[in-house]
Amino acid sequence: MNAQTSAAPFTFERIAQDGRARAGVFHTPHGDLLTPVFAPVGTQATVKAVTPRQLEEIGASLVLANTYHLYLRPGDELVAEMGGLHQFMHWKGPILTDSGGFQVFSLAGIRKIDDDGVTFKSHIDGSTHRFTPEKSIQIQENLGADIIMAFDECAPPYDREYNERALQRTHMWAQRCVEAKKRPDQALFGIVQGGVFRDLRERSAEFIAGLHTPGIAIGGLSVGETKEEMNAMLEVVDPILPEDKPRYLMGVGSPEDLVNGVLRGIDIFDCVLPTRLARHNAAMTRTGRLNLVNAAFARDTRPIDENCGCYTCQNFNRAYLRHLISAKEMLAATLLSIHNLYTLISLMNDIRQAILDGEMQAFAETFFKNRELVQE
Amino acid sequence: MNAQTSAAPFTFERIAQDGRARAGVFHTPHGDLLTPVFAPVGTQATVKAVTPRQLEEIGASLVLANTYHLYLRPGDELVAEMGGLHQFMHWKGPILTDSGGFQVFSLAGIRKIDDDGVTFKSHIDGSTHRFTPEKSIQIQENLGADIIMAFDECAPPYDREYNERALQRTHMWAQRCVEAKKRPDQALFGIVQGGVFRDLRERSAEFIAGLHTPGIAIGGLSVGETKEEMNAMLEVVDPILPEDKPRYLMGVGSPEDLVNGVLRGIDIFDCVLPTRLARHNAAMTRTGRLNLVNAAFARDTRPIDENCGCYTCQNFNRAYLRHLISAKEMLAATLLSIHNLYTLISLMNDIRQAILDGEMQAFAETFFKNRELVQE
Repeated sequence: MNAQTSAAPFTFERIAQDGRARAGVFHTPHGDLLTPVFAPVGTQATVKAVTPRQLEEIGASLVLANTYHLYLRPGDELVAEMGGLHQFMHWKGPILTDSGGFQVFSLAGIRKIDDDGVTFKSHIDGSTHRFTPEKSIQIQENLGADIIMAFDECAPPYDREYNERALQRTHMWAQRCVEAKKRPDQALFGIVQGGVFRDLRERSAEFIAGLHTPGIAIGGLSVGETKEEMNAMLEVVDPILPEDKPRYLMGVGSPEDLVNGVLRGIDIFDCVLPTRLARHNAAMTRTGRLNLVNAAFARDTRPIDENCGCYTCQNFNRAYLRHLISAKEMLAATLLSIHNLYTLISLMNDIRQAILDGEMQAFAETFFKNRELVQE
Repeated sequence: MNAQTSAAPFTFERIAQDGRARAGVFHTPHGDLLTPVFAPVGTQATVKAVTPRQLEEIGASLVLANTYHLYLRPGDELVAEMGGLHQFMHWKGPILTDSGGFQVFSLAGIRKIDDDGVTFKSHIDGSTHRFTPEKSIQIQENLGADIIMAFDECAPPYDREYNERALQRTHMWAQRCVEAKKRPDQALFGIVQGGVFRDLRERSAEFIAGLHTPGIAIGGLSVGETKEEMNAMLEVVDPILPEDKPRYLMGVGSPEDLVNGVLRGIDIFDCVLPTRLARHNAAMTRTGRLNLVNAAFARDTRPIDENCGCYTCQNFNRAYLRHLISAKEMLAATLLSIHNLYTLISLMNDIRQAILDGEMQAFAETFFKNRELVQE
């Protein structure tokens, strides 16, 4: 757990810059975030299969929770009654909530989208609900995260016409979110959209930067476009975004995406990948992945990764993990989640150190050289 | 974790006796067991939903694993190759394995039972296998637990004729297990059977005591008979069993059973109840049970038990636990397992202290007065 902040909340100090890569400190009411940082995802107010104490031991600092899910269950008003998300889920460090937009567009049944908001059906019970920018902020104020997100419209990355329309709404909605926001102890981030279109991304970065929010998110990437296109979009927005604000690349979290993102000026990442892969028996390493269901591991006395310092690698071998998977034991998901999260968080720590040492380029070269050609 | 033993392995020191209740120390190669003790069950070489580190934090000392399950998956020879169960599952304290008998008679499809052994079908893939007393010992020697069990035949508690036949086999098989056993670092316990029949239990206690094993188990209870019948059977065997050997009541573990067992001279207990109830959303307390799925808990800001010192009660309230259950999050099973195990283990610690203080009778009276009339 980071120490409580001493500087004013939501100021961002750049400690070092190496090429476009930045090492910094983002001050929040629940402690300082050392950036670049990877945030585990706690969709329903829990990072699946791990306790908050285990998250602390892994070295997690920022945790993400999903507004759409918590609005539906247990309800944002209930969470507020319980003293907010920090107290409810017992996470003492900083929390980030998304706006609910992405889930509404990907999970829920959309009934109607208009300039004012979105009417949708719950994926749980089919009941009808409506999100507007104001409603999203109200829910996020009830949840009480340190970092909250503007309500945006997520468009399919290659549909130019859709992206043009969605971008207009996203900008209008971001403005309304800024106006609706009341709590001084929360930082609202605007979100840059624009699909794979350079001019739309430029226009969006300029508009969102003009809102002067304490941080800026980049959305609509890692949603079907290629890695090259994602990297190109980051390079388009990087010079436009203010240097003195943290930049958050939403929903991105393979090891190579983290390195590529940092090289292009990103400070904050989140992704379900490490915990989702864990529940599907896959262990992440810096060089690739192991599917532990494989019979080749049945008598393998090595840890997942001999260089890993996590609880799982320090105490259990591949044969045991494979046994847990074969026997359908819950402990498999827990031990693999611990390992996968540790892999990304320790990678981030090493990246930060490389930036501080002015050696990020060499670090990235070694990283990519060691990485097997695997599909992330 | 208890300190490594200084006295010779498998000696049992009675520290205090209060009525029939005994407080003692059982020395094993993996540390001293302070008795009376409750052992969490790690059926498939894992106590479901909790890590070994969490088990240590809960204060667990002895863990049970199931010979039948581990023989089928991953195989006892594989476990032996991995350095034995302690290393495989990373449990540094004492481990107890059952003989496989109970599971063969309750889970597997029995094909043939004769005086030499049992032929059965795996519940996993239907393949045919055979256990004999010698085979059970061989498997348990491969698994490498500190305490191992004689292979026995479990009969329905009320069937007199069946129990007479089964008892003969159980005694013959116990003798064969004693002869088959080779490892000096394992303690073999004989098992007293006999259903609900006083004379059979007497005869069995006398026979098994005559084998001079370093401990004696009492099997075939909590399998359908009443609490009164179970207590009566314990009272029948108690004066026959040697005072200087630990007595293990197999598969029993509701809070009231623990108190009743200790009052009748039992030193060791195990049961799946706390972890199984946890996976079915029930929290155990000293006075009863809470089913946390209940809507009454949706806004309940109290911990499960205000007097409980476990990680779950120290950090999470009932509303959050109910949310995890509603949202089908794995963390619910983990947090409830931690709480339920802690409840039984701390109860045992308090029982031991009451015996040391010569106040076991008063402790039991208060315990039963506070306990609600619930079906365990």
